[in-house]
Amino acid sequence: MPHVSGSSRLTRRSPQPLAGVRAGAERVIPEVLWAVTALLRDRILRFDPQAPLWPDRDRLVVSSPSLLPLRSAFALAETAPPSSLPRSTQDELFGLAGGLPGQAIAAASGMALAEQLLARRFGRSLVDHRTWLLALPGDLETGVALEAAVLAGRFRLERLAVIVASPDAAFPATREDLTRALDRIEASGWSVRRTSGDDPEALMNALAGIRRARKPSLLVCDPGKTPLVLPSEPTVPRGQAARRTWLRRLNQHTQRAEFERIMDSRTIPRLEEDFLRLWRMTPHDEQEDEAALVQEGLLGQATLADLLPELVSLIGGAEAASLLGAPTKTSHHTTLACGPREPAMVGLMNGLALHGGLLPCGAAPLSSADRMRPALRFASLARKRLLCVLVEDSPDAASALWQQVEQLASLRAMPHLALFRPANAEEVAAAWLGALRWSDGPSVIVLGRNLSEQTDAFSLPSARARRTARGPECGGYVLEEATGGAGRRNVTLIASGPELSVARQARAMLAADGIRVAVVSLPCWELFTRQDRTYRDAVLGTQPRVAIEAASGFGWERWIGERGVFIGTEEFGMASGFDPLYQSFGVTPTVVCAHVHACLNRESRADQTGGAQSLRPQGRRMRATTPS
Amino acid sequence: MPHVSGSSRLTRRSPQPLAGVRAGAERVIPEVLWAVTALLRDRILRFDPQAPLWPDRDRLVVSSPSLLPLRSAFALAETAPPSSLPRSTQDELFGLAGGLPGQAIAAASGMALAEQLLARRFGRSLVDHRTWLLALPGDLETGVALEAAVLAGRFRLERLAVIVASPDAAFPATREDLTRALDRIEASGWSVRRTSGDDPEALMNALAGIRRARKPSLLVCDPGKTPLVLPSEPTVPRGQAARRTWLRRLNQHTQRAEFERIMDSRTIPRLEEDFLRLWRMTPHDEQEDEAALVQEGLLGQATLADLLPELVSLIGGAEAASLLGAPTKTSHHTTLACGPREPAMVGLMNGLALHGGLLPCGAAPLSSADRMRPALRFASLARKRLLCVLVEDSPDAASALWQQVEQLASLRAMPHLALFRPANAEEVAAAWLGALRWSDGPSVIVLGRNLSEQTDAFSLPSARARRTARGPECGGYVLEEATGGAGRRNVTLIASGPELSVARQARAMLAADGIRVAVVSLPCWELFTRQDRTYRDAVLGTQPRVAIEAASGFGWERWIGERGVFIGTEEFGMASGFDPLYQSFGVTPTVVCAHVHACLNRESRADQTGGAQSLRPQGRRMRATTPS
Repeated sequence: MPHVSGSSRLTRRSPQPLAGVRAGAERVIPEVLWAVTALLRDRILRFDPQAPLWPDRDRLVVSSPSLLPLRSAFALAETAPPSSLPRSTQDELFGLAGGLPGQAIAAASGMALAEQLLARRFGRSLVDHRTWLLALPGDLETGVALEAAVLAGRFRLERLAVIVASPDAAFPATREDLTRALDRIEASGWSVRRTSGDDPEALMNALAGIRRARKPSLLVCDPGKTPLVLPSEPTVPRGQAARRTWLRRLNQHTQRAEFERIMDSRTIPRLEEDFLRLWRMTPHDEQEDEAALVQEGLLGQATLADLLPELVSLIGGAEAASLLGAPTKTSHHTTLACGPREPAMVGLMNGLALHGGLLPCGAAPLSSADRMRPALRFASLARKRLLCVLVEDSPDAASALWQQVEQLASLRAMPHLALFRPANAEEVAAAWLGALRWSDGPSVIVLGRNLSEQTDAFSLPSARARRTARGPECGGYVLEEATGGAGRRNVTLIASGPELSVARQARAMLAADGIRVAVVSLPCWELFTRQDRTYRDAVLGTQPRVAIEAASGFGWERWIGERGVFIGTEEFGMASGFDPLYQSFGVTPTVVCAHVHACLNRESRADQTGGAQSLRPQGRRMRATTPS
Repeated sequence: MPHVSGSSRLTRRSPQPLAGVRAGAERVIPEVLWAVTALLRDRILRFDPQAPLWPDRDRLVVSSPSLLPLRSAFALAETAPPSSLPRSTQDELFGLAGGLPGQAIAAASGMALAEQLLARRFGRSLVDHRTWLLALPGDLETGVALEAAVLAGRFRLERLAVIVASPDAAFPATREDLTRALDRIEASGWSVRRTSGDDPEALMNALAGIRRARKPSLLVCDPGKTPLVLPSEPTVPRGQAARRTWLRRLNQHTQRAEFERIMDSRTIPRLEEDFLRLWRMTPHDEQEDEAALVQEGLLGQATLADLLPELVSLIGGAEAASLLGAPTKTSHHTTLACGPREPAMVGLMNGLALHGGLLPCGAAPLSSADRMRPALRFASLARKRLLCVLVEDSPDAASALWQQVEQLASLRAMPHLALFRPANAEEVAAAWLGALRWSDGPSVIVLGRNLSEQTDAFSLPSARARRTARGPECGGYVLEEATGGAGRRNVTLIASGPELSVARQARAMLAADGIRVAVVSLPCWELFTRQDRTYRDAVLGTQPRVAIEAASGFGWERWIGERGVFIGTEEFGMASGFDPLYQSFGVTPTVVCAHVHACLNRESRADQTGGAQSLRPQGRRMRATTPS
């Protein structure tokens, strides 16, 4: 524990040292937060400015970019002149968590959870630090913060401290809001204290007292009447000493190599080979029922959990929890149930990723996608690696309302996010490996259900059916070439997930009419986009393209081009009036065949009139999902 | 108030009347909720099955499609044989609110808020009913429910009652969750009671007691050990009598015509003419500063609020609240501040829309778009009309992190939602009128900021610049035709919002090189898609198209086609490492000109080699937003 000197020497004085950098930030950052930051820096925080990435440092984060000017307190600390703390180092010592209001409380909870999980694995001799969050009163008002507070209380994250400055007395309504928010957070298993910003001793005692709490702590600092700035004390020697003794303990630790591996984000050797070996050893469900893909996908997660000790599984929603069950070996694997709190769950995952040393993997129903979006966006923006498994709801009365329509498009639109929608066991394995390799941001694996009623004639397509050199690892590939080879294609069918079997059935039906069809599987747009142009052109072909996905066609113009046809749905899975009967999407091989015939007829007419190269807007086409 | 008979005659008996319809629902619907439904139907609820749309009926809604089987209690009521209550009537009497977990608590709060607002306007002689929500324990665990509970407590929605069955004793963890959730909701200004499902008298007393509460009520029913089914009582005469006396009061009411107008969702006569007249009378800001469009947009909201008494304004976030201020005339207009609770705010708006008689209009920062998505999706699905105004954050350090990138695409991908991104005063007025006309679902008006540094040379484009017959009301139109007419176009520039001025500057620069450019404004994709094909083709032209939007290009292939170029950004508005300096998008007239030259060069090479009609995937092009 870092040494804390007595508070008798704390005095008031003019805030000269910070005056320069505070211009413009005065409006948003309350005076008392500057004092708290200085106190944390000088008396409380466990950190060594010479080694900003020290794994056992305290984490200090702010909830909003508007609080980032507080970071300058570190640059201007007398004990650490600005030249010795470049901007990047300040970022390491003093980071931004969360993004949108309330998200930072979830992210800070995740950082404290990471500390707890790593301390459990490696012991307190290696992992013994805290997470401090400087937040705004508005953060406490958000739903995601309350969800996170519930989870932090349940997981007993006693190393977490959230500090907010109470709003100015000029806003009495907001003060009443704050009082009620504190009641709600206390009712979630937190220790809540209030202190005055006028009394430096009380402030210091409150900060020191946080370390004795056996629960997550929330400290509310009421605004002082006068500026309160505290003299700096030599921090560097204290932090350096703590780190030196820690390094000695690390050197003698039996798990030193493993600890260093996970803190450096290095994966285990031969992970992919071992994953595929285990994968091949597992008997895969050859059944055709609608849940087969879901089971394959979750099997991949269990396999990965057996191999990677840094994987932390979180489960949201009710249905996913019952599907997932327990991983096959639970010796070192952690699974945390988060209930219907998916917004906070992904926020916690951001915190696990920001902390380092852990790889978060969350599972939830696909209907949660929109609720997870604010946190997913922060992961995309911060380029943090998360794994998310979204399970498509079964199309019964209870969930048909939230059957996917535009969710795939809205996830694909998010920069740095990779979406995988595998179609069979081979593609599921490739999706997990692709997600592990995707280091630019979050990965989302969507496990669809087979809605087709005519799948009995075909097994799920497997590696056996494929004859090309490149496969699902490219994001898109030719699953079945046209009879006679690529040069003889009449049409290219493109599909993902369960709809791939619809495409294959349509191919067989069209063959009877003498139409030569290639079937392309497109499980991951982001990976396919990264392939070289020659490959992409060869896969997509120059003949008309028909895409099939039981969802909205928004964005599919990228792949089908101007002559293409999209077969899917722009309608929600319920009739108007909330009729609970599942409405068929009309995504069937027969419908696909009708579209192909119509498309080829248009092409032949266009060839005769020389109109094939004219540009045509596709607005109408997108709405017509079934031939009239 | 409806008559409630004594509970002494309540008895236990076998649940025969409901046995048939309960098959399959047993698993999810607790026994006690069937009893509560029967009690509500027979003793409590104010409704007349012969007039299911009676405006002063009690609203009874469920939180999840899984609870919809409870609806059958109404079909099987002895007092109302199934034949007299067709499915559509059941839907009216017994609806689904919300959709995703927790949303229904927000929607029910909105319905109770509608009752409160209408009672304030028309008096208790016309508006005197309650909102009853049957919910699941999981609903109470969600953040959006807690946000809604805070708002319901603050607005003192004493006509709101939420009833949940506590989970089975077999899940003790969930029971502890529930206890804590009740504490949190009580701390938000609610009256919280618990009762046993074993004691019919206690249940009846609890339901009757809800009507005496001066706060929103939450009733938790613990599961009984034996099935509890209560005999039906004649409901129809009670409801019919209540409605008859109500009709007498309505006939004598001075505001009868106005009440009937808003309850029938009929707009006022000459609304559009009056709006445009007021709009033209208002002096419009001709300034070029980045906030000009935002001010124009909010002026439109204030103008509408002056005309439409049924408009209810809600404000989320901090920045939007300070921007909006008070409407110009506040005599009948209501503005409700919701703080950083945008998820619940739009949930409340769904409730206002479901109730009828009010038109909700919410304003929030654009960064809230993802947080509002679950509620927006319910509005899309239920085809409810909401107006949302999203204000783009100013690109300073505090908010640049949430600068728009993919938000426009993800909103456009949502079925039944119309997105308007106006560029000037004329388009702002057209956006408001278009949103009022859009009855298929929610409308979102995005007010962008002008990020270009070179706007001083050009004023914002106005109606004066346009010479074509059709304008912004079509969703897309030619703002400036190419010199020499449509037949002489070399290239078409397409833009929306503030980027339209970039396009106009590029047009002038290209004219110096002898390139003839048409500038197309595309403020609303959904309206443009509904225009006839001939018009769309004429607007977009057959020459290469270059689209400009300071956001992600996802989905833009629909308009630019395969030869087109998109200029925007796939990157977030912050450099990695959270550098708070705003990164320029590179969306400038100079960049646009460079792209146009490169595009025309490619075209001329393609013409020489005959390759113009080959299909090319656009993945790479989408990533290249500036010429290398």
